[in-house]
Amino acid sequence: MNQRKQDSFLYEQVATDLADLIRLGTFRAGERIPSVRQMSRQRKISITTVLQAYMLLENQGLIETRPQSGYYVRSNLPLLLPEPEMSTPQQDPTLVSVRELVMMVLKDSTNPDLIQLGAAIPNTEFVIPVKLNRIMASLSRKNEHQYNSYDIPPGNEALRIQIAQRAVGIGCNLTHTDVVTTSGCLEAFTLSLRSVCHPGDTVAIESPMYFGVLQVLESLGLRALEIPTHPRDGISISALRFAIEHNPIHACLVLSNFNNPLGSCIPDENKQTLVELLAQHEIPLIEGDVCGELYFTGMRPSVCKTYDRKGLVLLCSSFSKDLVPGYRVGWVAPGRFKSTIEWLKYTTNVATATLPQVAIAKFLESGGYDHHLRSIRRLYAGFITQLSQAVEHYFPEGTRVTRPNGGIVLWVQLPDYADSLELYKQALQVGITLAPGYIFSATHQYKNFIRLNAAWWSYETDRAMKRLGELVAEQER
Amino acid sequence: MNQRKQDSFLYEQVATDLADLIRLGTFRAGERIPSVRQMSRQRKISITTVLQAYMLLENQGLIETRPQSGYYVRSNLPLLLPEPEMSTPQQDPTLVSVRELVMMVLKDSTNPDLIQLGAAIPNTEFVIPVKLNRIMASLSRKNEHQYNSYDIPPGNEALRIQIAQRAVGIGCNLTHTDVVTTSGCLEAFTLSLRSVCHPGDTVAIESPMYFGVLQVLESLGLRALEIPTHPRDGISISALRFAIEHNPIHACLVLSNFNNPLGSCIPDENKQTLVELLAQHEIPLIEGDVCGELYFTGMRPSVCKTYDRKGLVLLCSSFSKDLVPGYRVGWVAPGRFKSTIEWLKYTTNVATATLPQVAIAKFLESGGYDHHLRSIRRLYAGFITQLSQAVEHYFPEGTRVTRPNGGIVLWVQLPDYADSLELYKQALQVGITLAPGYIFSATHQYKNFIRLNAAWWSYETDRAMKRLGELVAEQER
Repeated sequence: MNQRKQDSFLYEQVATDLADLIRLGTFRAGERIPSVRQMSRQRKISITTVLQAYMLLENQGLIETRPQSGYYVRSNLPLLLPEPEMSTPQQDPTLVSVRELVMMVLKDSTNPDLIQLGAAIPNTEFVIPVKLNRIMASLSRKNEHQYNSYDIPPGNEALRIQIAQRAVGIGCNLTHTDVVTTSGCLEAFTLSLRSVCHPGDTVAIESPMYFGVLQVLESLGLRALEIPTHPRDGISISALRFAIEHNPIHACLVLSNFNNPLGSCIPDENKQTLVELLAQHEIPLIEGDVCGELYFTGMRPSVCKTYDRKGLVLLCSSFSKDLVPGYRVGWVAPGRFKSTIEWLKYTTNVATATLPQVAIAKFLESGGYDHHLRSIRRLYAGFITQLSQAVEHYFPEGTRVTRPNGGIVLWVQLPDYADSLELYKQALQVGITLAPGYIFSATHQYKNFIRLNAAWWSYETDRAMKRLGELVAEQER
Repeated sequence: MNQRKQDSFLYEQVATDLADLIRLGTFRAGERIPSVRQMSRQRKISITTVLQAYMLLENQGLIETRPQSGYYVRSNLPLLLPEPEMSTPQQDPTLVSVRELVMMVLKDSTNPDLIQLGAAIPNTEFVIPVKLNRIMASLSRKNEHQYNSYDIPPGNEALRIQIAQRAVGIGCNLTHTDVVTTSGCLEAFTLSLRSVCHPGDTVAIESPMYFGVLQVLESLGLRALEIPTHPRDGISISALRFAIEHNPIHACLVLSNFNNPLGSCIPDENKQTLVELLAQHEIPLIEGDVCGELYFTGMRPSVCKTYDRKGLVLLCSSFSKDLVPGYRVGWVAPGRFKSTIEWLKYTTNVATATLPQVAIAKFLESGGYDHHLRSIRRLYAGFITQLSQAVEHYFPEGTRVTRPNGGIVLWVQLPDYADSLELYKQALQVGITLAPGYIFSATHQYKNFIRLNAAWWSYETDRAMKRLGELVAEQER
């Protein structure tokens, strides 16, 4: 081996080592890697070799230079794997039923012995702001009568004011009288569906769709009409138009900003078209925005509600994904359905717990929320990148993966031979839980898809992904 | 006036003054009144005169002597007013609709300028244990991951263990695996009704019935079949048997221990007969027990669930009436319907808020609950007495009032000419809110009844009752 060849070997080795460290999360998206000088000293190699290694990594899209500052891990690491294509769900309204499987996936989430890639639970180990819990503690100690009493619908006023202010900040003109607080976003969906539909009615939804929504539809005796959905742009407006012209549709439900599981985000112009199309037909639009604040690039995406001229959009959200799930605080801006929503909220459970609402309101008033959001956006962007890299690295040929620009989940299309239910069972046996594709459709058609939760990324997750990749490969017979 | 006559006048005056102080709550049920010697010194009258006055009060049933201790205000002050009779509701299943009125009564409860005799909200000014809120504060400060995350159905295990232990303590053998926690008792009712009925089904209920339950029935498209109910003994078993033989009944719902608004308590032998009757016909029994711990005399009443051999009883309760409403923590022991209840709970709002559940569990573990219950039982018993006395004192002839042995409300039958909806409106104008009888029946038949909440008794309440009595009397034209 001549000197030149040895050098070539050396810089490639350095690059590979660094790529591994990035994939494993030692250096996360947006973080600085060691300077050329440090690396040269540390590895006892020439400056030139380090520079060659860094150029290679830059060409591979893993790192970027920032003038006067150094080398940084790129926020959106490039993937070679293709994305899944536009979904092509069955075109008939269908009653939903995958109840037992859903409850199993949920219960997995409480098992501390499992690697948690299943339920889309945000990371509560280290992302809950200490300040929020301090506020909660301080409010509790006060033992004030109004914090211990019912905060009947529409719910806590201070919180509704904060919610309205933030909506105005993204161009959606709400006042606190437009908002009803709920026990999380799923309750907002349930109340919204009950306020605009009757049993037997048909609801047009994005496909794939978060299984919680499908379960709500089943529990209310509603039919799901699954509309083709693009992995980046969300619901296909033309497919929806066709569906409306050929089916009686009583409501439409989309997860506009970072669909779960797709991570798709409906572009602003599509949002407007969607609202106008539905308004033409007097069809209420139930819009989910729980991950709207968890965007990785650019600006906070807008909401369909912004374009609502007829009070037909019911905007549903919560603080469960971006602040704290256990407080169970969400809300709905229900437009013309407000009095029905308030009444249904009362008949469901009288009111949302008071102290959690007040604590979140005070936290938002204090200005801590935006600071917190900035830090978890970075964190989750990094986790999504690492999880994507692990899919690319460990999963067999034929795998596709989404490129979410927000949220906490990845949607992985496995090779055609794979069966996600089998994989779910096999993975459980080796201590890993994931969400099988079946439960994201009323017609159980995402046989070879899985959803992975990136929010709990750790070194262990990388090992688990390696094992998962092997299990998938073993399914090829 | 001779000396004898003057003396007679004097002791009667002393007795009248004291009776007024008792009615106004200066001396409350169970409290000691001044000793004979003190009173003699203070009023500058003879010991004999004081003794005569006290004997008069004793004969009137207002006070009692306790050996070696002195004179005390009696816990159950006697009333001259008759009780309402067994209810005679319409015998046809009826769809419910008094939505707007119910929402108005609820919203009144948040108006600090009104005297609160309306919504049955427990007193959160001075009955929330400081210790409970201290526990909540301490848990919040810990910022522990599991307190911030979802506590998915069946809900918090430590709390379910405490609930099961207390049930066993009253002879109802539950384990924590029999219990699902909910966001309050109304949610437990809603989930229970959804788990055993379909829209259009008929539910046999006590009449009058807490309006929240009627609203749940309306919201779920269920029919209410109102069964005659005794103001002390609750649902008439013979009337229910007749109804079952002549109607298809899909569920029965009773508030076994201290029906709201009647304050009735189904006697143990009737509880057993009720469970057996329904079991014979395979009809699920939904049992509410929120006021079970708020008994004024004797022992904690048992629950129907104790006699459940077929898993057909769904026992629903909460900590809202006897501990803290704002935490929104309730539960259901749903027998054979448990897996459906867990699933419906998930589709309703994923889970009940975590911290409130953990805080209540720790409070119960600490043993503070029984001490707390003893003190609020005394308090509410006194308030009920004072409110009853005020009805007797101020309301016109023809008024009847219940004799609840527990709970926080009185059910008042006004003279036939009275209209409770008119009274509600007139009372609002003078700053008083109450619950009109209409909303306690699906057929709106309790025109001349009102429900009064005793939990917020104060000197102002007495004045308000005087005004209410006048308003009722003015309705006679």
